[in-house]
Amino acid sequence: MRKVIFGFANSLDNYIARKDGAVDWLLWCDEAREIMSEYWKTIDTILMGRKTYEPMLKYSDGKSNPYPNIKTFVFSRTLKQSEHKGVEIVSEDAAEFVRKLKKKKGKDICIMGGGDFGKTLLEAGVIDEIGLNIHPVLLGSGIPVFHEMNRQVNLKLLDCKVFKNGCVVVTYSVKKSKK
Amino acid sequence: MRKVIFGFANSLDNYIARKDGAVDWLLWCDEAREIMSEYWKTIDTILMGRKTYEPMLKYSDGKSNPYPNIKTFVFSRTLKQSEHKGVEIVSEDAAEFVRKLKKKKGKDICIMGGGDFGKTLLEAGVIDEIGLNIHPVLLGSGIPVFHEMNRQVNLKLLDCKVFKNGCVVVTYSVKKSKK
Repeated sequence: MRKVIFGFANSLDNYIARKDGAVDWLLWCDEAREIMSEYWKTIDTILMGRKTYEPMLKYSDGKSNPYPNIKTFVFSRTLKQSEHKGVEIVSEDAAEFVRKLKKKKGKDICIMGGGDFGKTLLEAGVIDEIGLNIHPVLLGSGIPVFHEMNRQVNLKLLDCKVFKNGCVVVTYSVKKSKK
Repeated sequence: MRKVIFGFANSLDNYIARKDGAVDWLLWCDEAREIMSEYWKTIDTILMGRKTYEPMLKYSDGKSNPYPNIKTFVFSRTLKQSEHKGVEIVSEDAAEFVRKLKKKKGKDICIMGGGDFGKTLLEAGVIDEIGLNIHPVLLGSGIPVFHEMNRQVNLKLLDCKVFKNGCVVVTYSVKKSKK
């Protein structure tokens, strides 16, 4: 079955961006580019919440789907259907939608943006893998990757890579809850 | 000069303990014991805040200093001087005290417990190294390792070890601020 993957670059103190959304602290390198290039070959679907979608559209001038070759589902009860090709607004329950999506044929599914949307899917137990590119910085404040959740999620380390620039890239599978 | 080291076992979502202080989720293994045994040989002083000291005394029946061979300074403006050998209550400014302590001869200095006390020392720029034993778990809630700070702290990765049980042990030096 296709996997749902929650993956980010984060600071050591659990932030995905500064409070204003800035990611000027991100370090790019050939090693990261190579991993991301391989990663995108395994993905055909992106899921995100409205709070990630709206700023992303702004950065791409609001003119086009930033990921035109990938089917994008945006979860929102308030947004109208998108005019952008490949983008579909979903107002139904996210966890239920993802469970159905996983049963369909396809490549893996990527969760974009973190926070509230990721929390909902982690709590619902529909995320299969977590990947983090832990940057060598304490931002001090910002938008958290992981919000408070109503349950513990046990993980299994699959891989750990160290980049020359000091980033530590860890990949975990989510252990299925016995509940 | 002797180093001040801030080191913990933490969950991937930035918690050092559950909300009630429980650390039942910690994984012990021979690899961790070996690292800790080498680490303690380099330490002759422990610093902690009252919030770490009081529960720690409770666990050791309140009868003795849990670290009898190491000089322990507890920072508190309310506690009376301790009756425990090797424990000294310090009511003066923590950052200033640590700056003076670093100039004295001795082994390295370990910060115990996290949170507020660590935040004060990180903001003051007196911490030299950070070590984390990142456990393969999202606790969902708890006591954070890193609190919000009034500034960014840049780090340099010194080492990264992976344990068989999936713990990732990272060590960073703190880059000195240009301020």
